[in-house]
Amino acid sequence: METLILKGNIVHAPVFGELSCIENGFLVCEGGRIEGVYAQLPERFSGAPAEDFGGALVMPAFVDMHLHAPQYAMLGMGMDLQLLEWLNTYTFPAESKFRDTAYARSLYRELAAELIRVGTTRVCMFSTIHRESTHVLMEELERAGVTGFVGKVNMDRNSPDFLRETTEESLSETERWIRECEGRYANLRPMLTPRFSPSCTDGLMRGLRELSQKYAVPVQSHLSENVDEIAWVRRLYPDCAQYWETYDKFGLFGADTVMAHCVYSDERERAAIKERGVYIAHCPDSNINIASGIAPIRRMLGEGLRVTLGSDIAGGARLSMMDVATEAIRTSKRNWLDTGKREAFLTAAEAFYLITSAGQRYFGAGPGFQKGDRLHALAVSDAAFTHTSGLTLAQRLERMMYLSEARSIVARFSDGKRVG
Amino acid sequence: METLILKGNIVHAPVFGELSCIENGFLVCEGGRIEGVYAQLPERFSGAPAEDFGGALVMPAFVDMHLHAPQYAMLGMGMDLQLLEWLNTYTFPAESKFRDTAYARSLYRELAAELIRVGTTRVCMFSTIHRESTHVLMEELERAGVTGFVGKVNMDRNSPDFLRETTEESLSETERWIRECEGRYANLRPMLTPRFSPSCTDGLMRGLRELSQKYAVPVQSHLSENVDEIAWVRRLYPDCAQYWETYDKFGLFGADTVMAHCVYSDERERAAIKERGVYIAHCPDSNINIASGIAPIRRMLGEGLRVTLGSDIAGGARLSMMDVATEAIRTSKRNWLDTGKREAFLTAAEAFYLITSAGQRYFGAGPGFQKGDRLHALAVSDAAFTHTSGLTLAQRLERMMYLSEARSIVARFSDGKRVG
Repeated sequence: METLILKGNIVHAPVFGELSCIENGFLVCEGGRIEGVYAQLPERFSGAPAEDFGGALVMPAFVDMHLHAPQYAMLGMGMDLQLLEWLNTYTFPAESKFRDTAYARSLYRELAAELIRVGTTRVCMFSTIHRESTHVLMEELERAGVTGFVGKVNMDRNSPDFLRETTEESLSETERWIRECEGRYANLRPMLTPRFSPSCTDGLMRGLRELSQKYAVPVQSHLSENVDEIAWVRRLYPDCAQYWETYDKFGLFGADTVMAHCVYSDERERAAIKERGVYIAHCPDSNINIASGIAPIRRMLGEGLRVTLGSDIAGGARLSMMDVATEAIRTSKRNWLDTGKREAFLTAAEAFYLITSAGQRYFGAGPGFQKGDRLHALAVSDAAFTHTSGLTLAQRLERMMYLSEARSIVARFSDGKRVG
Repeated sequence: METLILKGNIVHAPVFGELSCIENGFLVCEGGRIEGVYAQLPERFSGAPAEDFGGALVMPAFVDMHLHAPQYAMLGMGMDLQLLEWLNTYTFPAESKFRDTAYARSLYRELAAELIRVGTTRVCMFSTIHRESTHVLMEELERAGVTGFVGKVNMDRNSPDFLRETTEESLSETERWIRECEGRYANLRPMLTPRFSPSCTDGLMRGLRELSQKYAVPVQSHLSENVDEIAWVRRLYPDCAQYWETYDKFGLFGADTVMAHCVYSDERERAAIKERGVYIAHCPDSNINIASGIAPIRRMLGEGLRVTLGSDIAGGARLSMMDVATEAIRTSKRNWLDTGKREAFLTAAEAFYLITSAGQRYFGAGPGFQKGDRLHALAVSDAAFTHTSGLTLAQRLERMMYLSEARSIVARFSDGKRVG
C-alpha cells in the first residue's frame, strides 16, 4: 500500500470550536486513507516519500453542501432582486441553456477547475433538469477531482415552459440517469433533487420517493428560505402546517437529506429536522444577497442540529468556502446583536469546523483528520501575506479565512490523490 | 499640454443611483485633468496618443475615506473580539511598533503597493502617534501613487503607557509634523487626527483646534461606533448630551471633518452632522466584524448627509473598496429586513457611487468623470471571468464588484499619471 506523508503545520478541527494544531507535524496516509497525524514521524514511516510544505498550513479540504452548478455563469449578478423575482429574471433563463451539452461542457469545466482552485473537494450540488448535461457536470467534476453528490433537478410545475418537464418525463429521465451513473463515476453519486416543493407535483414527489427507495439515493432540496416563498408553499399545501411537511409527507425528509437555508425554521420545524436527522446547509452569503434573512444557526447548533455550510452560488457570490465561513461569522454577529447578545456569534474556529468537519460527516468521514478516512487536504501558504512571525497557527488560519486568497492554496488532495 | 486618451467601455456615476455607460468610448485628459468623455472621439484629438483597453471597463479609481495604516499588519485577525477589547489586545500593541521607522518603512511600502493594486488612489488615513513613521507612510504612499490625507494620531489619555503622549508632546510633535509637510509632498496633506474623544484630554483638543485654525488642516476621527464606547464617552463628558458634541465643543466638527462609523447616530446627532456638513465614512465590514452594529445609511442618504465609504482596516478585513461596496449592500439588506422593508437596500449602482463619486467630493472633485478634475481612473477587465457575451456594462460592473478580483484591474491612473 502506497504511503504518502505531508509535512507542515497541521491544523484541523476534531471538535466543534476547538482547533487541533501541530507545528511542523506529519500527516501520514496509506492507500489514500489517513493513517494518523504526528508531531514526530514514527520510525516505521522513516523511509516513505514525504512532501514538505514548509511553513504552510496543512488542513482538511473544504466541503460545499449546497450550490447550483449552472448558476456559475451568473455569479455576482442580479443581486438587486429577491428570491422569486431573481429566479424568474436570471436563474431560469440561465438554467435553460443547459439543454446544450457543449455549453454545459465549457461552463462546467471552468466551474470544476475553480472549485479545486479554491480548495473544495466535496460537494452536494444541483445541476439542471437536463440528464445529459448532468452527466457532463459529473464528468467534469470527476476529471478535476471534485467528489460527492450531484442532482439532476426535478421540476414539473410553476416553472417557465422552457424549463419544465412533464411528470413522466421527469421521473423516467431521473431513473435513466441514476442507472447510467452506476459504475460510471468513481467518486460522484446521484442525489434526488426536487427543486423545491412549489415546482413539484404530488405525483412527481411520490415517484421520487419510489426512486429513492428503489436505488437508495439520498435527497436534497430547499427549505424555508424566504418569507414570500413560505407563504406560497402554505397556499399550495393547505394540508401541511409547515414547509418541511411538504417533503415529509412524501418520505423525502430523512437522515440522508440535505435541506438548504432553513432561515425561517421555527422551533417545531427545527425539532422535525433534528428528529429526522436532516442536514442543514446554511448559506449565509446567499441568504443576505437575495435578502432572505438570517438563519439562527447558533440556536440550531445548540439544539444539536446538523449544521453545515454552502456557497449556494449564484445566490451566493463567492465560491470559496473561506469566504462563506467568514460570511457565516458576519451573519452570526448580526444575529448576536439582533438577539440582544443572547446568541453568541461564531468564532473563527467554529466556522472552520463548519466548512470542514461538519460536512465531512455527511460523507461518512469523522471530524478533522481522522484515521481511516479518505484524504481530502490542502496546503495553504501565507508566505505572501505580511509579517507572519510571532503569530499562532490559529491566528494564521483566521487570517487565511478572512483574506481568502485562492492563490495561497499551494496543494490540493482529493480522495487520496494530489489534484492541484 | 500633454493629451492622454483612454479607450474602453466608460462607466461612471455622475448621479447617485445612476450609471453613465458609454460602450467603446473615449476618456480624454489634458495635462492630467479630465477634458471629457465621448462616444466618438472629437476630430481635434485624432492625432493624440491613445491607450486602448479593449473590452475593459474604464471607471473612476476608488476612494477609501477611513483606514488605519498600521493595522495592515493585523489584517484578518482578532475578529472574535469587540471594539474596546480588540483595541487593547491587538491594536495598541500593533501600533506601538511604529516607533521603529524601519518596520514602518517595510509595512507601509507593502500597504501602499496593495492599495494601488486594488485600485484605491485617494484616502483619508490614520497613521500612529509617531511623527517620523507618519512621514514614512506619506513617502511610501506618494511613491506608489496614493493621494489624499494622512493623520498623525493624537492620544494623551486612556491609552497604554507604550502608546500615549503627553499633551505638550502630542501638540508639539503634531505642529512640527504639519510644518515639515509643507512643500514636502506633492499629493499628500496632513489631517488632524484625535483618535477618538476618550483618548484625548480637553487640553489636547483645544490645542488641536488652534493648530487646525493656524494651518487650515482638516480633521478626522471616530463617532458613535459601539454601544459601550458611547456609554464611556457619556461618562467622560457629563457636559455633552451626545458624542458629536465632544468634538463640536472644541471646534473640531466642521465641513472639512470626516467622522468614521456613525452607527448609532440618532436623529439629533444626524441633524448636527448635516448642519455642520461633516462627512460620514461608513465602514460596513468593520462595523460587523467587531460587532458594532449597522449604520442606517439609507436614512442618512435620504436626509442628505454626506455618506462615503471606508475599508477601516483592520476592523475591516478587506482593503478592496469593491469588497467594501458589496459589504455595504449586504449590510443594507439586513437593515432593510430589520426595518420591515421600509428602508430600501443599496443597489449596485448606488454602492459604486459611494466608493467613487461620494468620496471624490471631499477632494474637491465632481461626481463621476467630470471636466477639469484630476484623472483618477482604472481599467478593469473581466476577460478572465466566464461568459461575458450578452451582458450589459451595468451587469459587468456589478459582477466585478462582487467577484472583486484585484487581478482584473489592468491599469491604474492617479492624479493624471499611470501608476500601475
